[in-house]
Amino acid sequence: MIFKEKFRCNKTRARVGSIQTLHGPVETPVFMPVGTQATVKSITPKELYELGSRIILSNTYHLYLRPGHEIIKEQGGLHQFMNWHLPILTDSGGFQVYSLASFRKIEEEGAVFRSHIDGSLHKLTPELAIEIQEALGSDIMMSLDTCIPYPASEKEAENATSLTTRWAQRCLDAKKRKELLLFGIIQGGMYKSLRIRHTNELLALDFDGYALGGLSVGEPKELLFEIVDYTRPIIPPEFPCYVMGVGTPEDIIECVSLGIDMFDCVMPTRNARNGMLFTSFGHIVIKNSRYSKDNRPIDDECECYTCRNYSRAYLRHLFMAKELLAYRLNTIHNLHFYQTLMGQIRHAIKNNEFIAFKKDFYRKRLNK
Amino acid sequence: MIFKEKFRCNKTRARVGSIQTLHGPVETPVFMPVGTQATVKSITPKELYELGSRIILSNTYHLYLRPGHEIIKEQGGLHQFMNWHLPILTDSGGFQVYSLASFRKIEEEGAVFRSHIDGSLHKLTPELAIEIQEALGSDIMMSLDTCIPYPASEKEAENATSLTTRWAQRCLDAKKRKELLLFGIIQGGMYKSLRIRHTNELLALDFDGYALGGLSVGEPKELLFEIVDYTRPIIPPEFPCYVMGVGTPEDIIECVSLGIDMFDCVMPTRNARNGMLFTSFGHIVIKNSRYSKDNRPIDDECECYTCRNYSRAYLRHLFMAKELLAYRLNTIHNLHFYQTLMGQIRHAIKNNEFIAFKKDFYRKRLNK
Repeated sequence: MIFKEKFRCNKTRARVGSIQTLHGPVETPVFMPVGTQATVKSITPKELYELGSRIILSNTYHLYLRPGHEIIKEQGGLHQFMNWHLPILTDSGGFQVYSLASFRKIEEEGAVFRSHIDGSLHKLTPELAIEIQEALGSDIMMSLDTCIPYPASEKEAENATSLTTRWAQRCLDAKKRKELLLFGIIQGGMYKSLRIRHTNELLALDFDGYALGGLSVGEPKELLFEIVDYTRPIIPPEFPCYVMGVGTPEDIIECVSLGIDMFDCVMPTRNARNGMLFTSFGHIVIKNSRYSKDNRPIDDECECYTCRNYSRAYLRHLFMAKELLAYRLNTIHNLHFYQTLMGQIRHAIKNNEFIAFKKDFYRKRLNK
Repeated sequence: MIFKEKFRCNKTRARVGSIQTLHGPVETPVFMPVGTQATVKSITPKELYELGSRIILSNTYHLYLRPGHEIIKEQGGLHQFMNWHLPILTDSGGFQVYSLASFRKIEEEGAVFRSHIDGSLHKLTPELAIEIQEALGSDIMMSLDTCIPYPASEKEAENATSLTTRWAQRCLDAKKRKELLLFGIIQGGMYKSLRIRHTNELLALDFDGYALGGLSVGEPKELLFEIVDYTRPIIPPEFPCYVMGVGTPEDIIECVSLGIDMFDCVMPTRNARNGMLFTSFGHIVIKNSRYSKDNRPIDDECECYTCRNYSRAYLRHLFMAKELLAYRLNTIHNLHFYQTLMGQIRHAIKNNEFIAFKKDFYRKRLNK
């Protein structure tokens, strides 16, 4: 098995474990910054590492369209291309076809879509999704899934879910590189019976780990926790369990409590570029004029490069002037916040203090 | 005197010297990266330093309009605000009023102009130019000048030049902070007699150094060298001599040969953001499709972070995808090229090899 559980919270399902990958081990619960186009926007791999990142996510859909997986393969693979020598997880492209493509049609054979860049027509099959990810050399590949809109009828959800199972088997059949891992993506829409059925269908196949997909598509937050709550116990503890596209710091803490090991989200990086900064006491919208003369750091308790060297007044100035350094300094702060949070979560679980940590975290975030 | 000449080329006017400023000494010939809005676009002060920068230029005009010099003063001055603790030179705003403002009218009292940001009306007087620069805490302040368009009639040039002399005196009179240096800006348009007259007029005043202004306004390149050639010898060797807004690597080498000590130019940073990269063998336009599969660094001989870690193919991908990291990695490379060049120039002068260095530099840049 590629996953080893090391500590378990005695009051929740939270756990600390380790995933073994081609580029080394990853301690969980882990947050994966999103490096869509072979770069986590504005920062270098060296900074990513210094911020505590040990695995990143990159996007099959984007890299297939530009610069093309063949070019990256010729350059020695994605790790070499982007100069990141720790693990990389790539999603399969299923979600981006759903959310980005200017046209899409789901067929038995694969997803036909038009590129959001130049309108060119493509067909993403399970076999191609694996071919691309093997060319990139992803440590953890994801099987191709069909994302279900919210809301969707039960019939619609069932059809898409059944197709995802057939594609999952084809992904496993297409896989050639044994040293790379492949995770299955559980769909089922917002229907409990379908979610449970699909989980069991995928568990019958030979995946290295399991992800809950088709979430963060506009459904109410309670539905997310509900689905995680009833799905997670079905998956045996020897598998790493990943909730795709989640989420806020609070979402992550709740999902960790429910037994989730892996997370990715554009929130820390995208919000940074929009001037929304995470702190231990809530968040700050840096363009607010109240910060124009504020010589304090973003967060007094933060030890990131940005907080150690710059005032809110300076960060506001950079943001108002649309300076490139604004996006970078904000990204450093937000990723530091997320990775520090993950470190605190792991530490709390190891020391049987997770419940106390959670309470303290919420108290600070809501009160100040 | 604030300037000490340390080495002199025995075949040209090139020299190595040192300027003493409030934030320490600066070895010349020196190139000052441009940090218009209190940041050299996309990179941190730490990187600037590692790239060999020991003084930067910032813009009075921009900082006066946004965030406002009072705010920067309250934040402890520009050094503190932007976290750069080595010397800063600020220009007076005269050139930006000329090149950026949506409306401008030169009066005896000052330059009336409309902000390029919000159209608001302002009057930049010599007294205000000094007030702003003292609030910023510039190590080297520049006197307010009136930039002369090219072409301009002799009468027009003479009027503007005479006004610049009167403003120069008013700048000296307005100066309160003795620990900051103030340089005069020589105008005179493209008229030799006016340039010489103005140089002598400003030499009669009590400036710490002299700059040649009103260049790089569209005149032919030979005119630049001609003006530097006949103006420079009039300025006594105990003054640092600065040509504003110059230039290409070749321009810098020629001006160093003519006895110039200080340079600033947006070229390495702006061109980086446009994908034009300097190398020892000419330049590279990174978006060119010929680089799409090129796994070599930008320049085999370059030791910058970008060249040590990334291929042309990756840099092209980032640039085509408009990724923020593209601007940063390109800026690092171009500034490294400029600062390495300045280091080589100083080394060559010290070792009496400047002529040989020049020959070798041109041979490489033109041949390969």
